[in-house]
Amino acid sequence: MTVAYDGSPFRGFATNPDVRTVQDDLEAALATVLRRPTPTTCAGRTDRGVHARGQVVSFDADAAHVDAFALTRALNRMLAPHITVRDVALAANDFDARFSCIGRTYRYRILNAPTPDPLVHHLVWHVREPLDLAPMQLAADRILGEHDFTTFSKRNKSKQNETFVRTVERAVWGQTGATVQLEIRANAFTHQMVRSLVGMFVEIGRGRRPAVDMGHALQALDRSAAPSPAPPQGLVFERAHYHGHD
Amino acid sequence: MTVAYDGSPFRGFATNPDVRTVQDDLEAALATVLRRPTPTTCAGRTDRGVHARGQVVSFDADAAHVDAFALTRALNRMLAPHITVRDVALAANDFDARFSCIGRTYRYRILNAPTPDPLVHHLVWHVREPLDLAPMQLAADRILGEHDFTTFSKRNKSKQNETFVRTVERAVWGQTGATVQLEIRANAFTHQMVRSLVGMFVEIGRGRRPAVDMGHALQALDRSAAPSPAPPQGLVFERAHYHGHD
Repeated sequence: MTVAYDGSPFRGFATNPDVRTVQDDLEAALATVLRRPTPTTCAGRTDRGVHARGQVVSFDADAAHVDAFALTRALNRMLAPHITVRDVALAANDFDARFSCIGRTYRYRILNAPTPDPLVHHLVWHVREPLDLAPMQLAADRILGEHDFTTFSKRNKSKQNETFVRTVERAVWGQTGATVQLEIRANAFTHQMVRSLVGMFVEIGRGRRPAVDMGHALQALDRSAAPSPAPPQGLVFERAHYHGHD
Repeated sequence: MTVAYDGSPFRGFATNPDVRTVQDDLEAALATVLRRPTPTTCAGRTDRGVHARGQVVSFDADAAHVDAFALTRALNRMLAPHITVRDVALAANDFDARFSCIGRTYRYRILNAPTPDPLVHHLVWHVREPLDLAPMQLAADRILGEHDFTTFSKRNKSKQNETFVRTVERAVWGQTGATVQLEIRANAFTHQMVRSLVGMFVEIGRGRRPAVDMGHALQALDRSAAPSPAPPQGLVFERAHYHGHD
């Protein structure tokens, strides 16, 4: 299924005892409708406060007894208003939302204006200083292709031999009115990679660092070479890409 | 001052004992910063759940001892994230946000899509059935000029001899992607007038009534001739207009 959610009230996507997560809400609703425990897998685990418009979630069910339209309606009645199931579809038996996924697209939105906009305070990072998009785009071009993103990754202490090599396929900055936005696609992202990159892009756009610092920081392979990550509320998981269809 | 707010957590603009209102929060912050009780007047009292990007609020203060920039910053520190003071400016002594106001502009936003968008659930009315904008615009043209809006007004029982005659100066429907939006300006609006008109426009756009019903309903001068008002969360008070400057 394709799922959209406002990340504000959740402590991230992944199941976590004692706190409210998107996956816990989804699995509770699925269990109620399908009348059995229904574990799920997602295309990309989002952090606390991060949103999604196109998260993909797979689960096993008895396809002969599930009507996709009725299931969508029943889930949405339980999940509104912070989660919406946009679509439920039958997939091949070997489909897995995570391991079949060949690409992820995220957007990061910045409100670049003198004062914040309370109507979208949970959807943007408010940056007061005017941003210069030209050097930000130069720096974005620098990360295209396969790189080791150690500098821009939060390490997971429980994982041994973790690799931070990822391939960025698209990284484009655009502007509509006071909204400045990055669209970025990669085969996969490391933990906090987009927010960490955006922290660097904004340093460059504010004129605090030159665009070439992106390359220097990448090469350093050292998290201390990156500025603080951008806050989570500007980030939206827009799409998961699969062979044959998006 | 010009004020923006997310109406979701408030029970409307106007002061009201025992519940949280925008005016109460504003006056509490003003009293703290200016060190004296500071009553306010606004260009348009918005209802529970209705938002603003350009509400204008006037108050008396000792101009010689108020720095507009410092006041804005101090207020915003107290009012974030649901209220933002966008601007504070000195006005003529006889200026009054309500009685000097010669026009008000509101927007009403509808998400016209099969499924809701949880990221903006507090900012739009989600309407599933496809809307046909052509008859909606015909109906909007019909309300231009001076009319008695009794049919589209909620009566205030405490007011004797209340008049519902208002002049609509602009009423334009537009569409961007799945978002359908009305921009409407009048010299002033009666209580629930925009939401009540939008309720009728959407009946027309859904094909449940012909566009000429707008004229019939207006002429009926009877609230029972109007469908239910549209929900509050789609409504934003965008601008208050004054002679000389907006």
